[in-house]
Amino acid sequence: MKIEGRNAVLELLGSGRTVDKILMQKGAEGSAGRIFALAREQGVRVQFADRGALDRESETGRHQGVIAFVSEYKYAELAEILAPAEGARLVVVCDGIEDVHNLGSIIRVAECAGACGVIIPKNKSAQVTGAVVRISEGAANHIKVARVPGVNYAIDELKKSGFWVYGLEADGGDIYSADLSGDVALVVGGEDRGIAPLTRKKCDKIVSLPLCGRVNSLNASVALGIAAYEVVRRRRP
Amino acid sequence: MKIEGRNAVLELLGSGRTVDKILMQKGAEGSAGRIFALAREQGVRVQFADRGALDRESETGRHQGVIAFVSEYKYAELAEILAPAEGARLVVVCDGIEDVHNLGSIIRVAECAGACGVIIPKNKSAQVTGAVVRISEGAANHIKVARVPGVNYAIDELKKSGFWVYGLEADGGDIYSADLSGDVALVVGGEDRGIAPLTRKKCDKIVSLPLCGRVNSLNASVALGIAAYEVVRRRRP
Repeated sequence: MKIEGRNAVLELLGSGRTVDKILMQKGAEGSAGRIFALAREQGVRVQFADRGALDRESETGRHQGVIAFVSEYKYAELAEILAPAEGARLVVVCDGIEDVHNLGSIIRVAECAGACGVIIPKNKSAQVTGAVVRISEGAANHIKVARVPGVNYAIDELKKSGFWVYGLEADGGDIYSADLSGDVALVVGGEDRGIAPLTRKKCDKIVSLPLCGRVNSLNASVALGIAAYEVVRRRRP
Repeated sequence: MKIEGRNAVLELLGSGRTVDKILMQKGAEGSAGRIFALAREQGVRVQFADRGALDRESETGRHQGVIAFVSEYKYAELAEILAPAEGARLVVVCDGIEDVHNLGSIIRVAECAGACGVIIPKNKSAQVTGAVVRISEGAANHIKVARVPGVNYAIDELKKSGFWVYGLEADGGDIYSADLSGDVALVVGGEDRGIAPLTRKKCDKIVSLPLCGRVNSLNASVALGIAAYEVVRRRRP
């Protein structure tokens, strides 16, 4: 959903609602500066573009050099995902998944594997847009997705709550030899850069899937699917 | 790769090369009739469109109402995939995967899981185009992909060669309780219609993944990934 025009965007930034990003015309002056400052304060990404780009994005034709993108998706709080549950819990943490297809597919897999939630960072990550909900086949409406300022903070909270945190990377220990009992959090890294170094250090263990061919990685959502279902398999009676 | 113009396309149809489809201008006369007849004879799909569509597709601007799409991908023969191998074999059969993203992703998964090949039908299926090779992260160049006139014939050949054929569907037996020893062929159905009824009957067994949420299916490539890696897991020392 798009909110256009300076006053509307200023009001929006004061409302506490989640803003995905703000598109701002290059060289915009006056109240645009205040919008920029407020956005920065709230950690909202501001992208600068020329007037033509804003004209193309505009649905009203009256953007005054500012268009805000608002997510209509209702995110959950991290605490809701960490709530106690019957039986062992499973949580998926996305560390910088930037492709909407991958995020949608990851949310779908997480829901099918019975995870209690998916955690994504507010920045440098695809957000749950209408397209992501559609790609997830509606799974995003059945599973809790929480946005956190940083993935590392979320991992600390997961650990405090009793989770074992496993990072999925190509150079880790064999996943089939890993323990995987108890509450499990699976961390998936971004498409190109994988899991960030500091986040990787925070994981209790780095685990890998065997690669039997010459291609050196699986797609993020497929790798997550295989790992999550290994957890599902172990938990079966 | 596109071949444009009537003589070029007629020559192409006589060359024995694999033609993905032919785009023909509605109402085209003269030699267009011969092209249509030849294409039908060879099982090449002919799609009719208006002149504007051909103009947009044309790279030369001289299409004369006919554009053929030729795959540059070098397919393998079914017999190559069925060749004896050291250890137990794994083959993936796609029954009408129409989305290029899914096909590329399936080929990538199959390669990573060490499959000896992927089998796709000539009709009602995505073909291995440049986009599919790219989506597969190049896996299509490292694994044999065979095109067959029909999937049912391929399944008969697989059985003769000693394979156990498992269909992946939502209403089958629990995959974790299935045997999966010996040579295994995994059949994945199309995005919407699943595995065709006759093909389903030809499978030795229909197996399913547990679905723990409310969404009633996994994406085809993710489901295949989980099933193929269950085979990989069982075969590990």
